[in-house]
Amino acid sequence: MIRIGVDAMGGDYAPENVILGVIDAYSYLDSETKIFLVGDQEKITEVCRHYGLDSGNFVVIHASQTIGMGEHPVKSYLQKSDSSINVGFNKLLEGGIDAFASAGSTGAMLMGCVRTLKTLKGLLRPCISAQIPLANGKNMLILDVGLNTESKPKMLYQFGIIGSIYAKTMMGIANPRVALLNIGEEREKGTLVAQEAYRMMESSEDLNFVGNMEANSLFSGGIADVLVTDGFVGNVCLKQTESMYEMFSKLGVNHPFLSRFNYEYYGGTPVLGVTAPVVIGHGASTPLAIRNMILEAEKSVKNKLVERVQDAMLGQ
Amino acid sequence: MIRIGVDAMGGDYAPENVILGVIDAYSYLDSETKIFLVGDQEKITEVCRHYGLDSGNFVVIHASQTIGMGEHPVKSYLQKSDSSINVGFNKLLEGGIDAFASAGSTGAMLMGCVRTLKTLKGLLRPCISAQIPLANGKNMLILDVGLNTESKPKMLYQFGIIGSIYAKTMMGIANPRVALLNIGEEREKGTLVAQEAYRMMESSEDLNFVGNMEANSLFSGGIADVLVTDGFVGNVCLKQTESMYEMFSKLGVNHPFLSRFNYEYYGGTPVLGVTAPVVIGHGASTPLAIRNMILEAEKSVKNKLVERVQDAMLGQ
Repeated sequence: MIRIGVDAMGGDYAPENVILGVIDAYSYLDSETKIFLVGDQEKITEVCRHYGLDSGNFVVIHASQTIGMGEHPVKSYLQKSDSSINVGFNKLLEGGIDAFASAGSTGAMLMGCVRTLKTLKGLLRPCISAQIPLANGKNMLILDVGLNTESKPKMLYQFGIIGSIYAKTMMGIANPRVALLNIGEEREKGTLVAQEAYRMMESSEDLNFVGNMEANSLFSGGIADVLVTDGFVGNVCLKQTESMYEMFSKLGVNHPFLSRFNYEYYGGTPVLGVTAPVVIGHGASTPLAIRNMILEAEKSVKNKLVERVQDAMLGQ
Repeated sequence: MIRIGVDAMGGDYAPENVILGVIDAYSYLDSETKIFLVGDQEKITEVCRHYGLDSGNFVVIHASQTIGMGEHPVKSYLQKSDSSINVGFNKLLEGGIDAFASAGSTGAMLMGCVRTLKTLKGLLRPCISAQIPLANGKNMLILDVGLNTESKPKMLYQFGIIGSIYAKTMMGIANPRVALLNIGEEREKGTLVAQEAYRMMESSEDLNFVGNMEANSLFSGGIADVLVTDGFVGNVCLKQTESMYEMFSKLGVNHPFLSRFNYEYYGGTPVLGVTAPVVIGHGASTPLAIRNMILEAEKSVKNKLVERVQDAMLGQ
């Protein structure tokens, strides 16, 4: 049995949207998978009853506190030890659940990853990733998209390894091409960190490194399956992509390509490089987004993503 | 009389597109402005005659060599002393022309800026800028977009000053709001360089600093008129914007907002912080792009952009 912990109190429209997402997810999950809802028992039971989610279909893990979206994430995580996010991470650490997913405070979720869970052995730093839709119909993984503001060359190299494993394991790409985001194609382009990362990636046998990629190829596809960058640049890239999507949506531009940028289909941001599967959903998650967040968590467990990344780090 | 030097040999479709752009520009230039075409005299004369540009309307400055788009820009600039780009920069240095514009090799143009011209007194480094169209109908200036791969806090601060002057002088914005591109709004967000730049900008009386801006507001407008970032991040931003524009153009998405991203309207990239006005056009410049590159150069001279930036740097 795969046990997916879901923060029932996480997100702007919790617990309603979370419960609706859970109900939706059950149509797609393996029959052996079970959802563990973390949060206020009374409220959860009430909302589940209201929407007709049968009590045999979920387990409630009670948590008396909630970390609000406006609260300081670091302080809240340290002080609210009975918050749904704290309780979820502790349950994950104990092995009571196999993965934890929440659309709640991103900062508090990241605190849980680094304070309660551990970074995998041999890895300098965990990271977060996102998928960028390409015009050729495929998606490209980009990482780090914001966990680390300053990166060393070896961190970028390791993000390449992690991204490559994610692309194989989760996106079904046999031999993922890994590129380094840079401001020119030549090896001597960019910062000293980028230049050194290029050398490390190029000389590695664990990576199918295809060299530098510039951002003017970001949406066209055909160059790389995994794009490595530091968390500052990756965060800017991702937010700019969001800005583009929102802008064209507001302007009423309709196009199938544009619709692929809808975050709801991606189920949130997996945290990569920590000792258990964690997925962070968008704060404004709809039931569809929650469903996909849960499916992402289940797939991580089924495909042993954490174990594979750990093996790769030990085998370096 | 304003004398605008134009590299007749610069760009993928030179000299034809350059001459056509010059002809177009004459409908918009002040009657006192004259174009100085730099390049192969025979070829220029022939193409001008072919397109009916009256010889009273231009002066030819002969240059026997050309730096091709595929050539190594640094080596070419150092070796081809009689190239149109070298000759143009030397003429600019001597005061024989008041501005120089080229759609030729960007790298060679930047070499000219730093090897033949000088950085303005008091300024750590020159930079290049671009305008991003906003949904509210206005444009935002972003700088640096690629001249410097690594930036110190004071460089970012000075880019803010330069951007503010450009926005006043060239974009007609009375009291430009200057923001720092960062991965969060709070002052303690981002790299140490970003944090220190924040402090410098905040405590300056020469800037209308509005704080950090995230890339998810990039296209929406209403926050800032000038966005400061380091050359690596700025270059990625700009190229990602190009990628977006190309993608939607290819997909046949038509929208007035999208059409404002067409580079042809912006006339290229002004180099800011050097001792004379320089504009670098897009390699694939059409006659329309060449016209706007020339108009940008003329406006820089008329509005004394270089002098204003120099005054600000000396007054720091």
